[in-house]
Amino acid sequence: MTTQTHFDGAGGREYGHLALHTDKYQINMMYAHWKNGTHDRIAVFEAYFRKLPFGNGYAVFAGLERIVDYIQTLRFHEHEIMFLREQEERYEEAFLQELRQFRFNGDILAVPEGTLVFPNEPLVRVEARVFEAQLIETALLNFMNYQTLIATKAARVRRAAEQDVLLEFGTRRAQEAEAAVWGARAAFIAGFDATSNMRAAMLFGIPAKGTHAHAWVQAHASEQEAFDRYAAALPDDVTLLVDTYDTLGSGVPHAIETAHRLAARGKRMSAIRIDSGDLAYLSKEARQQLDAAGFLDVKIVASNDLDESIIVNLKAQGARIDIWGVGTQLITAADQPSLGGVYKLVAHERAAGEELEPVIKLSNNPEKVSTPGKKDAYRIVNRQTGKAEADYLAFPNEEAHIRNGERIKLFDPIHPYRHKWVDDYEAVQLLQPVIVKGELAFELPLLDAIRAYHQQQLALFWPEVLRKVNPQSYPVDLSVDVWEHKMALIERGGK
Amino acid sequence: MTTQTHFDGAGGREYGHLALHTDKYQINMMYAHWKNGTHDRIAVFEAYFRKLPFGNGYAVFAGLERIVDYIQTLRFHEHEIMFLREQEERYEEAFLQELRQFRFNGDILAVPEGTLVFPNEPLVRVEARVFEAQLIETALLNFMNYQTLIATKAARVRRAAEQDVLLEFGTRRAQEAEAAVWGARAAFIAGFDATSNMRAAMLFGIPAKGTHAHAWVQAHASEQEAFDRYAAALPDDVTLLVDTYDTLGSGVPHAIETAHRLAARGKRMSAIRIDSGDLAYLSKEARQQLDAAGFLDVKIVASNDLDESIIVNLKAQGARIDIWGVGTQLITAADQPSLGGVYKLVAHERAAGEELEPVIKLSNNPEKVSTPGKKDAYRIVNRQTGKAEADYLAFPNEEAHIRNGERIKLFDPIHPYRHKWVDDYEAVQLLQPVIVKGELAFELPLLDAIRAYHQQQLALFWPEVLRKVNPQSYPVDLSVDVWEHKMALIERGGK
Repeated sequence: MTTQTHFDGAGGREYGHLALHTDKYQINMMYAHWKNGTHDRIAVFEAYFRKLPFGNGYAVFAGLERIVDYIQTLRFHEHEIMFLREQEERYEEAFLQELRQFRFNGDILAVPEGTLVFPNEPLVRVEARVFEAQLIETALLNFMNYQTLIATKAARVRRAAEQDVLLEFGTRRAQEAEAAVWGARAAFIAGFDATSNMRAAMLFGIPAKGTHAHAWVQAHASEQEAFDRYAAALPDDVTLLVDTYDTLGSGVPHAIETAHRLAARGKRMSAIRIDSGDLAYLSKEARQQLDAAGFLDVKIVASNDLDESIIVNLKAQGARIDIWGVGTQLITAADQPSLGGVYKLVAHERAAGEELEPVIKLSNNPEKVSTPGKKDAYRIVNRQTGKAEADYLAFPNEEAHIRNGERIKLFDPIHPYRHKWVDDYEAVQLLQPVIVKGELAFELPLLDAIRAYHQQQLALFWPEVLRKVNPQSYPVDLSVDVWEHKMALIERGGK
Repeated sequence: MTTQTHFDGAGGREYGHLALHTDKYQINMMYAHWKNGTHDRIAVFEAYFRKLPFGNGYAVFAGLERIVDYIQTLRFHEHEIMFLREQEERYEEAFLQELRQFRFNGDILAVPEGTLVFPNEPLVRVEARVFEAQLIETALLNFMNYQTLIATKAARVRRAAEQDVLLEFGTRRAQEAEAAVWGARAAFIAGFDATSNMRAAMLFGIPAKGTHAHAWVQAHASEQEAFDRYAAALPDDVTLLVDTYDTLGSGVPHAIETAHRLAARGKRMSAIRIDSGDLAYLSKEARQQLDAAGFLDVKIVASNDLDESIIVNLKAQGARIDIWGVGTQLITAADQPSLGGVYKLVAHERAAGEELEPVIKLSNNPEKVSTPGKKDAYRIVNRQTGKAEADYLAFPNEEAHIRNGERIKLFDPIHPYRHKWVDDYEAVQLLQPVIVKGELAFELPLLDAIRAYHQQQLALFWPEVLRKVNPQSYPVDLSVDVWEHKMALIERGGK
């Protein structure tokens, strides 16, 4: 066992490279394909999840920008090749040489970020040499799983907070530095208004918000002095943390005194923040004190392990909170900290140049059986209501049929006897070409546009699908062709 | 609101820099201190957590190497300064100039990685100009919280698995790429044997393990062909995944056939892997098939959402599993995905050059009241038993007293009437100087040494503290001096 640490610093040469952000079995499968001469065969993989997180009725797809950047910069650098050479597998030199030339030259289609998505529909579809498609599985899932998870959690918090301002405050409890920035981005897509994370603000253009900590108050001889000095230094956006010693007995009265002094200089205090104690009681009492002093426009910010349930409960108790700082529970998706996204082979060339053949993965766990074949995903929107009726998976050769608006049969793949016919619909193709033959074929939208698109997506769905508790299940249906192919492959034991 | 994305790629110049891996309020407090001329005052902060995760009896400290690297490379680069200049706070140019000169020139003491640690004791102690100490809070907590959390989870899994081999398999479900590598490192410290993550293996020298996925089997005309071809390509360490179609009906028999063919070439098959279904039943049946075919030394690897409870249950059911692949549940610490580590001001210079004065943070939540004063932490080891009796927090001026082995009073800070006197003890100083006046003053141990040290740490504690369920609570006591200071400050309302 070697113990030499090759880590050379957060900004270091080796640290930022992601070719080896993969599982060893991907490298071993690439090697075995290469040894067997099958590495150039075309394979089609689809990434999807099987179960919605948090009991929510939908997920919010995110992570695509990160995936695109990864694909476009994907190279094996010499230090990575040297590391592979040391492995116990003793890969042949010609294989390592092949890796030196490695580029992703395949196609990637994906759902746009901010789209509402559902179980068992392809969110990303990769068509490439199996050599390429296999390598990228781990990173692609890692990026998609985390950002989609956090965007979904953020959407729940946004729903609970209604029109209130939402701040992302999670960095210190995030699972390392990248989770903090990509999580902040995902939260912003799903409706958060700002983040405390300065790096996320810089990298993505998200508004940054922040005030002061208890340490600021402790670092002064008195709370009053601390508040006055903070207001003197940053008079244009003063939010004072009032719970260092005694929220109602000293914090709020001192903040009001500072607000008076600011007012005398023609400035107004923005807000107070409460970070502990009974937020319902304290916010109501603080509101009364502020109002009695004439500061009706000073806002109240609350933080302290908030999540969507606590926000709903605080609102139900009449808490007077205007701005919610949400940290740990959001950035780690604490009640379910992973989205179980998978990446499954659905079709491949059995021999070089042959037509793509659908393949299946069976399982002793029935919900793990995959749906074979390269598939498109459509959102079937009822023209009468303007609402989405179902998502519909079909083979590419069914496109003309669907585009023409021909009558389609929607049926439940778990209970296929339940079905209906629809004809007055618009079919929105969800998967869009992102990378074509290795080149970017998609204009990555600006973050504000993604955020606005997410809002439009919400408007496509009935409130029953969107509600936080026991939502109505939204159907993801298979075309008759896809269904029959799947049944036939199951019958034949996968072969 | 700007939406320009500054993100320029995973390997990009801006992405790896961590000066802005901080909350905005740190920058605002730095600015306010600078405006008020208090930014050079010395401050002492202690990082600790208040509650053990997972109901475990201890935590395993990790994250120090990451913190050290961060501190040593901490600079504001010009693009970060430019970003700060655009902020709505309109920081003065002279402040930005101050940031251009920024270096961490203070002292950091920390507990060595792999140490068993407990609530409310300092794990990292920072003494520096408040300007410096404030900036680093967020990153320091982010690093310490995540790695300590995962090392603690891994220690629980290690305990459940007894002497079996443990593989870390979590990358695709990790919360982004850094969590994957630092989590793999933390797991290795606490007793995991290898990781599937190639980047973690490269960066830290952790052994990498991996075999093949379902896609490998699906990519061949038959399971038998898939197995044979994999074994042909990588004959020296063949582990075959047997659950793509039918574990006992096809997977294991095909694997046995491949094992026979390998044996005919003088090679032996290493293992089979089962990734779905009833792992207790399937492993027992697979073991019988392997044994009946004469392959008594072929191991069985299991994976599929394992955690320490499932491992204990499978063992209790007589599952014949030799090697456990643990993914999602470990890498996200799924049952409690954050450690609530905090960083609190405990002492400061009230005016430049004056003696350090202890400070307290009160709270409407009693468990959030901090313990004032700059403190050392000792592990009091009973010389008779060789076991740790308690950790003991004392002021630096109490050191000679403790070093001389003078009688000390151990009492419970929650129930102070419960006490005992100890005299035949060895006092191990837990906090060690790591950074002194900005320079590394500590030889960072190799990862294998940290792992071995962690094993020694475990031997210091009674099994009652180490057990997974309802462990005995290990005391963290305060010296009489520390206790009396705290009570006096509480009496005076913090002032």
